[in-house]
Amino acid sequence: MKLPQLKQPEQLKSLSVDELTSLASEIRQFLIEKLSVTGGHLASNLGVVELTLALHYCYNSPKDKFLFDVGHQAYVHKILTGRMDRFDTLRKYNGLCGFVKRTESEHDVWEAGHSSTSLSAAMGMALARDLKGEDNKVVGIIGDGALTGGMAFEALNHIGHAQKKLMVVLNDNEMSIAPNVGAMHNYLSKLRSDRHYLRAKDEVEGMLKKIPAIGGKLAKTVEKLKDSLKYMVVPGILFEELGFTYLGPVDGHDLQKLIDTFKQADNVDGPVFVHVLTTKGKGYTPAEADSYKWHGITPYKIESGQVLKSVGNPMYTDVFAQTLIELGERDSRVVAVTPAMPGGSGLFPFSKRFPDRMIDVGIAEQHAATMCAAMAMEGMKPVFAVYSTFMQRSYDQIVHDICRHNANVTFAIDRAGFVGADGETHQGVYDIAFMRHIPNMVLMMPKDENELRHMMFTALEYNDGPIAYRYPRINGLGVPMDETLKSIPIGTWESVREGEGYAVLAVGPMVQVALEAAELLKREGIQLQVVNARFLKPVDEDMLRALAKSRTNMIVLEEACEAGSLGSAVLEFYASQHMFDTTVSLMGVPDRFIEHGSIKEQREETELTASAVCEEIRKLIALHPYEYGKSSFPS
Amino acid sequence: MKLPQLKQPEQLKSLSVDELTSLASEIRQFLIEKLSVTGGHLASNLGVVELTLALHYCYNSPKDKFLFDVGHQAYVHKILTGRMDRFDTLRKYNGLCGFVKRTESEHDVWEAGHSSTSLSAAMGMALARDLKGEDNKVVGIIGDGALTGGMAFEALNHIGHAQKKLMVVLNDNEMSIAPNVGAMHNYLSKLRSDRHYLRAKDEVEGMLKKIPAIGGKLAKTVEKLKDSLKYMVVPGILFEELGFTYLGPVDGHDLQKLIDTFKQADNVDGPVFVHVLTTKGKGYTPAEADSYKWHGITPYKIESGQVLKSVGNPMYTDVFAQTLIELGERDSRVVAVTPAMPGGSGLFPFSKRFPDRMIDVGIAEQHAATMCAAMAMEGMKPVFAVYSTFMQRSYDQIVHDICRHNANVTFAIDRAGFVGADGETHQGVYDIAFMRHIPNMVLMMPKDENELRHMMFTALEYNDGPIAYRYPRINGLGVPMDETLKSIPIGTWESVREGEGYAVLAVGPMVQVALEAAELLKREGIQLQVVNARFLKPVDEDMLRALAKSRTNMIVLEEACEAGSLGSAVLEFYASQHMFDTTVSLMGVPDRFIEHGSIKEQREETELTASAVCEEIRKLIALHPYEYGKSSFPS
Repeated sequence: MKLPQLKQPEQLKSLSVDELTSLASEIRQFLIEKLSVTGGHLASNLGVVELTLALHYCYNSPKDKFLFDVGHQAYVHKILTGRMDRFDTLRKYNGLCGFVKRTESEHDVWEAGHSSTSLSAAMGMALARDLKGEDNKVVGIIGDGALTGGMAFEALNHIGHAQKKLMVVLNDNEMSIAPNVGAMHNYLSKLRSDRHYLRAKDEVEGMLKKIPAIGGKLAKTVEKLKDSLKYMVVPGILFEELGFTYLGPVDGHDLQKLIDTFKQADNVDGPVFVHVLTTKGKGYTPAEADSYKWHGITPYKIESGQVLKSVGNPMYTDVFAQTLIELGERDSRVVAVTPAMPGGSGLFPFSKRFPDRMIDVGIAEQHAATMCAAMAMEGMKPVFAVYSTFMQRSYDQIVHDICRHNANVTFAIDRAGFVGADGETHQGVYDIAFMRHIPNMVLMMPKDENELRHMMFTALEYNDGPIAYRYPRINGLGVPMDETLKSIPIGTWESVREGEGYAVLAVGPMVQVALEAAELLKREGIQLQVVNARFLKPVDEDMLRALAKSRTNMIVLEEACEAGSLGSAVLEFYASQHMFDTTVSLMGVPDRFIEHGSIKEQREETELTASAVCEEIRKLIALHPYEYGKSSFPS
Repeated sequence: MKLPQLKQPEQLKSLSVDELTSLASEIRQFLIEKLSVTGGHLASNLGVVELTLALHYCYNSPKDKFLFDVGHQAYVHKILTGRMDRFDTLRKYNGLCGFVKRTESEHDVWEAGHSSTSLSAAMGMALARDLKGEDNKVVGIIGDGALTGGMAFEALNHIGHAQKKLMVVLNDNEMSIAPNVGAMHNYLSKLRSDRHYLRAKDEVEGMLKKIPAIGGKLAKTVEKLKDSLKYMVVPGILFEELGFTYLGPVDGHDLQKLIDTFKQADNVDGPVFVHVLTTKGKGYTPAEADSYKWHGITPYKIESGQVLKSVGNPMYTDVFAQTLIELGERDSRVVAVTPAMPGGSGLFPFSKRFPDRMIDVGIAEQHAATMCAAMAMEGMKPVFAVYSTFMQRSYDQIVHDICRHNANVTFAIDRAGFVGADGETHQGVYDIAFMRHIPNMVLMMPKDENELRHMMFTALEYNDGPIAYRYPRINGLGVPMDETLKSIPIGTWESVREGEGYAVLAVGPMVQVALEAAELLKREGIQLQVVNARFLKPVDEDMLRALAKSRTNMIVLEEACEAGSLGSAVLEFYASQHMFDTTVSLMGVPDRFIEHGSIKEQREETELTASAVCEEIRKLIALHPYEYGKSSFPS
């Protein structure tokens, strides 16, 4: 059977291992070709070709449930479940999702873009199965990176205790998105690298047989043996101690061994932990050589492995990365902290310059936030560099450990606003709403990359508590960059375009959108004021008072959920001042999840565009016409 | 030296172990006497008397840092650091805090009311120390319960990898607030219970010496040996595998052994894990016998151990507990999930009635939330019973796993609003603000305990996605309880008192406050309407339109942070409808953390009282006087 004939995973059951192996090659070729055009998560999917084939061969999806942790390594699963013909639309608007997606297929049972959720979900499905008296299998497939996330440990702790029938497959490629860190990683490496393991195991087990008959005294040489002995006696002892039956490590590119292992796992009554070794980028030389770079990739030339980069202004992330080094030079208290995103956050150059002052804690946003609080209390200036969407995971620590202690932690919130192709699991549209109500927080967003630099300096100079700047996943505007950094007075906005009667209070990249709208409206004789509302908290109370006094009609424009973000802050301020005769209209992200596509498409779908601003102003004009020339509203 | 002479911990240094032992007895007596009057966390503090003495004896606070996880077991530390004379004010308004409090003493370096934060904070302090080139010790003291929290594992993973000098003291009393659960607990129990440990260790180490010389074949009997052998060879292997030097277990009530162990720990360069066995309630028979009941206790009679309970209507928690059993009888899909709070949440009776349908996951709010999502997707009706403040820890999982999947999870949010004596770490005032902006969420709060029952039924009947009801930590109103439960139409409010010109939109217990205000204002000729705004999301749009149409002046009254809660929702609704001529004033919790005291005192401090409502109405009247009789406002 050739790949194009494969429509349902049950077709795999009748194939021989040789035929499956041949299919694996076809799948690799398909992925390499398709992704060279669309881009996507190439390396991780090349690594799980045989693993995914073996799972579908041994189990019966969708009755048996496969839960892929961070579903970006489910492309092979999508190919095997009838979605091969949709790969031209991968990660595009209305196209195939880059993650597991329940609406796409009955074989997709668990969606995730954030890591470490699969084991908790698997436990939930196993519990439900047993309560319903059903007998399907539940398999959680998790990477070694995701295993460092605290919630994965919470799940292991519960699963090992409850002893439900459930399989954890550890897809161990010694890499998450970045080189993995942490004690768990060191432990897995030991398991992985012990070449003498099998022979030694036989020998030692033989020796142990005689132990009851042997006496003797404590000897120094024993110390040397301990380290290796403990692995030989019970491989994967850490997982065994947590209540799992440990199987492995098994070569994740050997189909026969994978199939044998899964069959063996099936005979275990309680929870099983199958340790599978895979190679990220397997079968495509450039990706194998640099699996980090090839984790998520833009289109590329297949032969050369040359990546086709779009030309443009530096990204905000690049400006952050470079400026942080400047701040690090200026002030030795600056320490960068990342939860396993040193590359995505642009921190590699900083870590080269200041190796002791860049701390990668692994996928551990909770730990990172609380650790930052303590560092700040001891006089450092930690910069927690984190994506808006992943920051959600440290909400409690931000409230309880950072803001309640009023600790001088700086948040560098990347990917704020729409994120494009990663879609609804990754949208950075909630951080204003979940940060703004926390006491002591200061929250900023710059109108351009030059202002980002000043905000970073502002945060460094600020010593009165937590402070955050958020920036989008887009190219900067290409504005001139100031040489000298200066502190922006806390809580001040700036009017970037004067006008009369109508104003847009715009946040971050929306300032540019508002300026475009102002140009369009100028043709209609409307003089739209544009305010750069660069502080989300505290708001500029003087400017808000002045706007109210001049009876200006306002729109608050932000690429953030409408509920609870800056629009609400403005409304709350006027209510608190008993200024009831203001006109404030809100333009934000509506109350639903926004799917993948380009950022432009996402803005169009949610009406965060210049033309939509013009429409809204026209509506306000109909309600409250301003008479230019008379400088007034008719009363 | 007698206890009253002790003013600073350095005075301990010159004492003998016998003198320290005598001091321990005095401290126990002091705690038992003082807490019999004030109430507080008795059992956990009786358990750590010797441990705290030994730490202060061996180290130099405040130069050396003691970080108590969930600082409610720091009473002994407070006694040893000069705060003995303030215990009459324990947990009272402006009195001694029941947790560690930095403003109280330089010896208090880390505040926490939520569990599992101490190891992350310890790592932050160790990193800062090394970057500054200082040499102080850092000690995190964590309970076995708190060790199940995912962020504690994230910290262990990082600490074990980074190999900083740092000490973790595991205060293992086989109990957190409730009997502990989880695989880690099982593991600790094994370590704890192996009486043959020391002798066996010597023997086996002797035997190992000869291993290189022994051959032999695999034998079945070896299997039986494996389990015990692995403990004998390397005690605490799980922690050793994570990169720690493990010491213990050591008797936590033997001062000499504790002191010896801490000295030994001091000689280790990297991270040390000291396993200390303590008995909760040690030295007070009633508390030793039922350490769960005596975890947090109201005043009691010392001789009999009889607890002096205040008489009152059933708490909301009691009504929840009893009603959940009714729902469990009615519908076998109902499953209760608790993150280590089966008692506080009132779930013990439910677990007795339905042992398979009450799932205690340990301190693991993230895992609990995601597990609930998966159970719901498989057709169950999980009820996640959680305190508002601890729910903060599952914010990301609520967004990403529950709401994004639109899973039919019910949230039973206890301790919503002020919590009284537990103070600022536990206030349940953020959940409306952090839940309301998440798509698909339905959020309710009842005006009384009878309505809570109907809301629970409403949630059971609702099958369109996540739904939450929140309730306060207070007694119910003693209202008659309906026999028949009925579903409340989603998004509908009710006017519980008619009026004209002015209305209060009140949430939960604030309905009662508004009614009291209405009675007071009646004497001034004002007819205040009171609305039970029982849905925080979605709001009652029809009623809001009607209120606006009648030009009613409104106050939104809620025991929740003013930013982002119901007040904002009302303002946002009017803005979205371009209804700009409404008068809405906000009364909520101001933008700062509110300290411990009684709930009454906390409401007075934040002006959430009937008299404050009257004041605010008088202000609105001055701005917009309504002419009763003419049924109108002057235009």
